[in-house]
Amino acid sequence: MIILGIDPGYAIIGWGVIRYERGRFVPIDFGAITTPASMPFTRRLECIYDELTSVLEQHKPDAVAIEKLYFQNNQKTAIDVAQARGVTMLAIHKSGVPIYEYTPLQVKSAVTGFGQAQKPQVMEMTKRLLRLKAVPKPDDTADALAIAICHAQYGGTALKLSLRTEK
Amino acid sequence: MIILGIDPGYAIIGWGVIRYERGRFVPIDFGAITTPASMPFTRRLECIYDELTSVLEQHKPDAVAIEKLYFQNNQKTAIDVAQARGVTMLAIHKSGVPIYEYTPLQVKSAVTGFGQAQKPQVMEMTKRLLRLKAVPKPDDTADALAIAICHAQYGGTALKLSLRTEK
Repeated sequence: MIILGIDPGYAIIGWGVIRYERGRFVPIDFGAITTPASMPFTRRLECIYDELTSVLEQHKPDAVAIEKLYFQNNQKTAIDVAQARGVTMLAIHKSGVPIYEYTPLQVKSAVTGFGQAQKPQVMEMTKRLLRLKAVPKPDDTADALAIAICHAQYGGTALKLSLRTEK
Repeated sequence: MIILGIDPGYAIIGWGVIRYERGRFVPIDFGAITTPASMPFTRRLECIYDELTSVLEQHKPDAVAIEKLYFQNNQKTAIDVAQARGVTMLAIHKSGVPIYEYTPLQVKSAVTGFGQAQKPQVMEMTKRLLRLKAVPKPDDTADALAIAICHAQYGGTALKLSLRTEK
């Protein structure tokens, strides 16, 4: 099974593609979509949509796992993250791939066995499970890979937000 | 000048197209995009994107005016409204039409001359300015027409979020 994990945002959107077969994780490709602050916001939304569509077309995942949004202290940031996440969800839905949402607690728990684990521990375990030489950079990319691992562990028992058969 | 006003949301997205010429407003078309609660959220996003794209293709506005998002008490609703608004902005940007944002205060002030005006007064003035026999329903559609009138009044002096020439 090919899984695409996504860490949503508007300045940096981390993504990571892994294969999960017989209890083993194989990293396939990972990176980050970045949009500069100097770019008008609607153009940033377009970049996110177009670049994510390219990633989906290139890797043809069987499932996409994305982190659930939780509220932040900064209202302006929260609105912009949510607006960009809407565009991210649209790109995935248009590609026909089922989407699964996970909370940060589920991701930490799946990767380290402990829902309250600190970020460095989650990153270290992500590196080990994928047999990488170093933790991928930026952090958003490492987070996206952890989300993909989380989906493999949960095995699709989580809430499925969109079904291929609906299309 | 043809102006499309939009009242963003995810269950009901009001829209209204007006022509503004020599200080006179002419209603061209108006309505609402609605998505049922029974529909998966990502599919709702797709409906909003596709139906709004149709409205844009049909009416080819010179400008789109949209209400600025402000925070609500209900966090879940606020996140979903913002996610849907991101998709709304993407559809407008992809159509190449410049987008302008207005606050509720600017809209009330432009339509009634008083920023603290109550909703019924805004609706009554929208009806009168457009020489309609009744206030359009649902309220979201009337709001969208008020936002379009607001843009005509401000004459494009507001913050332009996206420029056709950027494409």
